[in-house]
Amino acid sequence: MKFKELIEKLGEAVKSSSETPELEITGVSAIADATPNTITYAESPKFIEQLKATQASAVILPANEQLQSIATDRGLAWIVVSQPRLVFAQAIAFFYKPFRPAAKIHPTAVIDPSAQVGELVSIGAYVVIESGAKVGNHVCIHPNVVVYPDVVIGDRTVLHANCTIHERAQIGADCVIHAGAVIGSEGFGFVPTREGWLKMEQSGYTVLEDGVEVGCNSNIDRPAVGETRIGRNTKIDNLVQIGHGVKVGEACAFAAHVGIAGGSTIGNRVILAGQVGVGNEAKMGDGSIASAKTGVHGDVKAGVTVSGYPAVEHRVFLRSSAIYNRLSEMYQAIKQIQKRLDEK
Amino acid sequence: MKFKELIEKLGEAVKSSSETPELEITGVSAIADATPNTITYAESPKFIEQLKATQASAVILPANEQLQSIATDRGLAWIVVSQPRLVFAQAIAFFYKPFRPAAKIHPTAVIDPSAQVGELVSIGAYVVIESGAKVGNHVCIHPNVVVYPDVVIGDRTVLHANCTIHERAQIGADCVIHAGAVIGSEGFGFVPTREGWLKMEQSGYTVLEDGVEVGCNSNIDRPAVGETRIGRNTKIDNLVQIGHGVKVGEACAFAAHVGIAGGSTIGNRVILAGQVGVGNEAKMGDGSIASAKTGVHGDVKAGVTVSGYPAVEHRVFLRSSAIYNRLSEMYQAIKQIQKRLDEK
Amino acid sequence: MKFKELIEKLGEAVKSSSETPELEITGVSAIADATPNTITYAESPKFIEQLKATQASAVILPANEQLQSIATDRGLAWIVVSQPRLVFAQAIAFFYKPFRPAAKIHPTAVIDPSAQVGELVSIGAYVVIESGAKVGNHVCIHPNVVVYPDVVIGDRTVLHANCTIHERAQIGADCVIHAGAVIGSEGFGFVPTREGWLKMEQSGYTVLEDGVEVGCNSNIDRPAVGETRIGRNTKIDNLVQIGHGVKVGEACAFAAHVGIAGGSTIGNRVILAGQVGVGNEAKMGDGSIASAKTGVHGDVKAGVTVSGYPAVEHRVFLRSSAIYNRLSEMYQAIKQIQKRLDEK
Repeated sequence: MKFKELIEKLGEAVKSSSETPELEITGVSAIADATPNTITYAESPKFIEQLKATQASAVILPANEQLQSIATDRGLAWIVVSQPRLVFAQAIAFFYKPFRPAAKIHPTAVIDPSAQVGELVSIGAYVVIESGAKVGNHVCIHPNVVVYPDVVIGDRTVLHANCTIHERAQIGADCVIHAGAVIGSEGFGFVPTREGWLKMEQSGYTVLEDGVEVGCNSNIDRPAVGETRIGRNTKIDNLVQIGHGVKVGEACAFAAHVGIAGGSTIGNRVILAGQVGVGNEAKMGDGSIASAKTGVHGDVKAGVTVSGYPAVEHRVFLRSSAIYNRLSEMYQAIKQIQKRLDEK
Repeated sequence: MKFKELIEKLGEAVKSSSETPELEITGVSAIADATPNTITYAESPKFIEQLKATQASAVILPANEQLQSIATDRGLAWIVVSQPRLVFAQAIAFFYKPFRPAAKIHPTAVIDPSAQVGELVSIGAYVVIESGAKVGNHVCIHPNVVVYPDVVIGDRTVLHANCTIHERAQIGADCVIHAGAVIGSEGFGFVPTREGWLKMEQSGYTVLEDGVEVGCNSNIDRPAVGETRIGRNTKIDNLVQIGHGVKVGEACAFAAHVGIAGGSTIGNRVILAGQVGVGNEAKMGDGSIASAKTGVHGDVKAGVTVSGYPAVEHRVFLRSSAIYNRLSEMYQAIKQIQKRLDEK
Repeated sequence: MKFKELIEKLGEAVKSSSETPELEITGVSAIADATPNTITYAESPKFIEQLKATQASAVILPANEQLQSIATDRGLAWIVVSQPRLVFAQAIAFFYKPFRPAAKIHPTAVIDPSAQVGELVSIGAYVVIESGAKVGNHVCIHPNVVVYPDVVIGDRTVLHANCTIHERAQIGADCVIHAGAVIGSEGFGFVPTREGWLKMEQSGYTVLEDGVEVGCNSNIDRPAVGETRIGRNTKIDNLVQIGHGVKVGEACAFAAHVGIAGGSTIGNRVILAGQVGVGNEAKMGDGSIASAKTGVHGDVKAGVTVSGYPAVEHRVFLRSSAIYNRLSEMYQAIKQIQKRLDEK
């Protein structure tokens, strides 16, 4: 594809280099290990050194004079756009066709006669679909997936290999469940008794609304009664645990190793960074953020960023953690002051 | 089922509302999203607002006058019991029949001729059972489970889909292994040498005693020599890692993302909250507790609750973490005091 | 095997007990739960009490007079070597033959005609290998593994049950991928837009160099463009997450629950203890170490050990965390000093 054609397709260029319209672009690349005839992107002046060294032939830039001037000096083709990373995502989509198996049902798939399967589905080898399940149109189920009874899977949803969908789970349209993930498993519900732990049967179910993505080997449990719910377009990374009865809003993003304990309520557009823990029955308001490794208890107000364990407002955490390294010095200072006072 | 019949079955009521014995109860529900003709529960005065609003028709209450009076005012059927959550668990069990596949062996299961399989087992599609394995009576193995050689599985144990049981693992009776869990995998045993890491073969095995439950995608490794052992009735949540040679006592409960490093010893009835880490060769006494995200090193005495990293007694942690937010203020105060002293 | 024969095979003995050459050694054992006629090891004086009580008949010792004298007094056969744990690993290898299925392809394996499979491979029941994959010689793939298109698997590599290898992943020779692990899955790449999260297609791939080991249910993602790379002989424990585009050097060791965010660079021989998190775009130099639960941001210099969150040098962490428990006391002291000053 010629550079000028690519620009037209991307359609958002504020301006572009004028001398290289005929340049042939054959793919996309990362700025640090690019090859000639590929297009890459730079998001901010942080990329200056990499831009000076990249082997890419074209680059998507933000409105930054210095970056443009480096690109021009190096003879690179460039375009300036308001959101380089977004336009780069579009560029990838021009060149890359994700693997999608053909729309057919492998003869080894074991599908219960009572299950309903939509049109143009792809169901891989050794998939097992139990009684009463409903699979929508254009669904893609990769090999060795197990779907327990009475599950509902919406149109165009993809289930990657070796994942498990438990009884009564409702998965919306356009969801992606990655390899090894487990949806709708039994919540960790045990009642302490004199004889030990009594199992509380988990009669509820898990709902993923449309456009939810669940990472590899992540788990979303179902509750004893009622539902666990993940709102529209929420994106969940790998190895995340979401406990029984949790309610998650729309368009949230949870990074790897996040754990949300039973009964918590998470608003819309909440961001949880890696290894964050949210305690039992906690509440996080819309747009709140927890930075990496934060331990959330109680309530976090809408729009607030918290950090640390126990979680405090991020700016308080920054101040306190900066001083943490000086604790020994502070301790000595107090001892010395006491001595000075005693000596007077 | 009529309310009066249900009370009789639950059998533990201290007292109950007298006006609604003929009320029809059709199921159980969570207090916050209940439907008419269901029974729910309230555990403490914390549930007051929810009790005022619930759509349930009946409620299991503790001995609390205020809750009873609200329930009566709202015309709800109610019973008072000493442990509402326990009785609610029993109520669920009356209405909910967990999914259990029929007792038959799917023709696609690949079972080595040298394996012994008990009576009335359910073995799902595409299960693989290797040589020398022994499967007890009434065992249920869901689809796509892999059982390596010489594994022993006790009576009535359930293995959910896509889990893996490694060679020589011994799983007791009445255990539940959830989807994707891996039992008896190789411990992380490498010896540093000048040429890099030398693998130490893991010739040991893992033992789960009776009544153990292991959550989705959790792992319990086997050691180089000897055994890793999980005691009777210990319950383990999702995404938990238990290292090689760990000894865990009876009736413990470990929440999600707990990690226990190799060689540690955990007593009976120990509770580890979410994301707790227990370091190499640590020892935790009977009845000790680690709160969420705690990092345990060394020894924790019986009955003690620890928090923080490195772990300290919980009350010390509470005091120190409350002051953590004031570190900046303390630092400034010390500077000011020094200035005042210098000025004199 | 007679003790004297075993010593000859181990070949590294500095000296040995002289009176028991004919002793029959039938296996290896852990010092704390050994049985007669087995050989165990003691690594340091920390093992004294266990050595006094062990039921083993022979023991591998370091150059320590006290341990030798206890072993002699107890009538144990012993050898002294420079690295007891290393020699014990060799002793295990004499007695223990790890389970390895026969070199044949199970008739139920579904292998795309375009895939290339080497010689003397073992491919288990219900394995699925998609188009364009290349499987080397002597590779062992356990049951229910799924290999997506265009994957390359080097000679002698072992894939344990239920693991998933995603499209274009390149796995070197002599690697071990443990049960449930997922290699080359889509990175967590979403661009925030006004309409929500836009998925950035992950067109890159994951490379594991020779001798890499990946633990159970661990995940190594692929990036949007370019590669995620794990260097030669790096060993990764269970439930570890390695994000898109991460570069890991050679001979590293990562313990369970480690999470490395996208774009980070880890040098050679880096050790990350359990539950460590490494933030986006962080850099860790050769030979650096992060102790358990550390949260690494920014850069860590070669050879440095860091701890805490945010990470600081380990010795600073030790000093500060020791004083953390006295924060309440310090706070009171400051209040009192202020009072004394005010009273003057």
